[in-house]
Amino acid sequence: MALGENSYDILLERGLLERAGKLLDLDRRVLIVTDTGVPQRYAALLAGQCAAPVTARVEQGEGAKSFAVLEGLLKTMLAENFSRSDCVVALGGGVVGDLAGFAAACYMRGVDFYNIPTTALAQIDSSIGGKVAVNLGGVKNVAGAFYQPRRVLVDPALLSTLPPRQLANGMAEAIKAGVVGDEPLLALFEQEDAQGRLEEILLRSLRFKQRIVEQDEKESGPRKLLNFGHTIGHGIESVYGLGGLLHGECVALGMLPMCTSPALRARLEAVLRQNGLPTRAAFDPAAVFAGLCHDKKAADGQVTIVTADRAGAARLETVPLERLRTLLEREAKEGIGA
Amino acid sequence: MALGENSYDILLERGLLERAGKLLDLDRRVLIVTDTGVPQRYAALLAGQCAAPVTARVEQGEGAKSFAVLEGLLKTMLAENFSRSDCVVALGGGVVGDLAGFAAACYMRGVDFYNIPTTALAQIDSSIGGKVAVNLGGVKNVAGAFYQPRRVLVDPALLSTLPPRQLANGMAEAIKAGVVGDEPLLALFEQEDAQGRLEEILLRSLRFKQRIVEQDEKESGPRKLLNFGHTIGHGIESVYGLGGLLHGECVALGMLPMCTSPALRARLEAVLRQNGLPTRAAFDPAAVFAGLCHDKKAADGQVTIVTADRAGAARLETVPLERLRTLLEREAKEGIGA
Repeated sequence: MALGENSYDILLERGLLERAGKLLDLDRRVLIVTDTGVPQRYAALLAGQCAAPVTARVEQGEGAKSFAVLEGLLKTMLAENFSRSDCVVALGGGVVGDLAGFAAACYMRGVDFYNIPTTALAQIDSSIGGKVAVNLGGVKNVAGAFYQPRRVLVDPALLSTLPPRQLANGMAEAIKAGVVGDEPLLALFEQEDAQGRLEEILLRSLRFKQRIVEQDEKESGPRKLLNFGHTIGHGIESVYGLGGLLHGECVALGMLPMCTSPALRARLEAVLRQNGLPTRAAFDPAAVFAGLCHDKKAADGQVTIVTADRAGAARLETVPLERLRTLLEREAKEGIGA
Repeated sequence: MALGENSYDILLERGLLERAGKLLDLDRRVLIVTDTGVPQRYAALLAGQCAAPVTARVEQGEGAKSFAVLEGLLKTMLAENFSRSDCVVALGGGVVGDLAGFAAACYMRGVDFYNIPTTALAQIDSSIGGKVAVNLGGVKNVAGAFYQPRRVLVDPALLSTLPPRQLANGMAEAIKAGVVGDEPLLALFEQEDAQGRLEEILLRSLRFKQRIVEQDEKESGPRKLLNFGHTIGHGIESVYGLGGLLHGECVALGMLPMCTSPALRARLEAVLRQNGLPTRAAFDPAAVFAGLCHDKKAADGQVTIVTADRAGAARLETVPLERLRTLLEREAKEGIGA
């Protein structure tokens, strides 16, 4: 990832976790942040390679992305005498990466941060790009930073313990990357053996995201394309996320209404279905609209959405928020809600 | 301040607050952060120049630099529908600048930040350089960021409401700048009419700090020179700060033991006395040592201190922490504690 003085390497290979001590500078105090959903032996394997490890195990789920948990991590570092020369490692999914990354960004105004993503979603998407944050008042990512890791270890072997639904959850972001700007990546999902091509999918997804972030680290332009499916997706997630829909599942649902040609919509729908992602869910359009209005992308009655009429060619469009209300009402009757 | 894409202007002139609306982009939602020590008419004057002002008035004092108050500011911005295109203005001293700047750095991963310092300390030192933070667990600046303002308005007319002790408090940082790297600035304080040369002192202090920060924004090298007087100073402040010693007064006391020649020490002592700053204070060396050990500059039994043997030529030195214990014990008997 070429970002001037914030540049870093993203390594992709089976078995990287076992060699973390050789690949990262762990010869100092290391705060390992993980959660109750990550196999404990992963954390033990990592801790065994650190000079002075301190492990913080937070509750699995979005609830850990809170001010209170963040403050707890910073207090742990303080109690353990962490200095500006020590570091933080995230070992988990997107929640752990966002939380640990923000703790690293804040502590003493910034200590080294490494990310070892353990879920498909994090390996494909959230572990690179430097967006870190916690939630506030029920709104996602209200407090955060752009803070790049020093190095990211993507070890596909860690995904072997994931249930199929979690794997599909991550694939939603790779499918998104395909629709936004990499048609051959989307085509990979149309093959019979998509599951067997995991490493190729990871590599293409990471390369695509790398290109976008290198162009626009702080999301003032092209990086907004990565929000394809996320405006309606976050709206659905804010209402139905706790009721059982995963992030990638909400994004899957959120992408379909943003396809402006019937051909692309049909193609995407087939890909989603084939890869275990939902294409229909009963929802209340008024509640979802309220949820997305609360989302940060909405300001002054206007919202920037991402649409696509063919794979690999998404574009940004600024529309009145009201247009989304109408769209949601229609989708509830004859689209994703039907 | 030339810092690449983070560059910004620092304007110094009487009457800038009255013209803030012309000098800053206030034609949007503006969170004005101020405190109970700042005259309310200053905030009213600023609010009158904003399209959509929201004023947050925090309690005066270091207590406002807390996670709880920070969270409150972010919640206010959320409740008032602030987007990434809105902004935050600090109108107050160093505490307000640190707190408001960190809120601006965090909110939606960063919104525009302006600083209008109203105390001598903030006008001379803390309002420029981009260090923002809150305290945690009794330790200063544990959580923060390097986040540069978009513009700083230094209006010396605002200092006319300050009591003399507060003015002297700020002068301590200007005297420090003189000792560290600008002998003619130190010499200004030896003139009969130092008080009448306020604007010249402000200008020289800001220029000096600007040069250092431009060289080393993130304090990996030369910027550490600005910590002259602050290692022992923070130690004293952590023990006696609440008991009535101001930050600049603690720094004044902290600088004296760091003069390695009797000539410089005598010169500095005379300057401090002439400008209403303390050169003696009874203190418990063990308590101050414990306080400074808790400070962030101490790691692994070593500490980087700043010493000077003549004005304008400070240097960094890494010494065992224990050396400071010995030094404090001696100073308590026959130095600043005598």
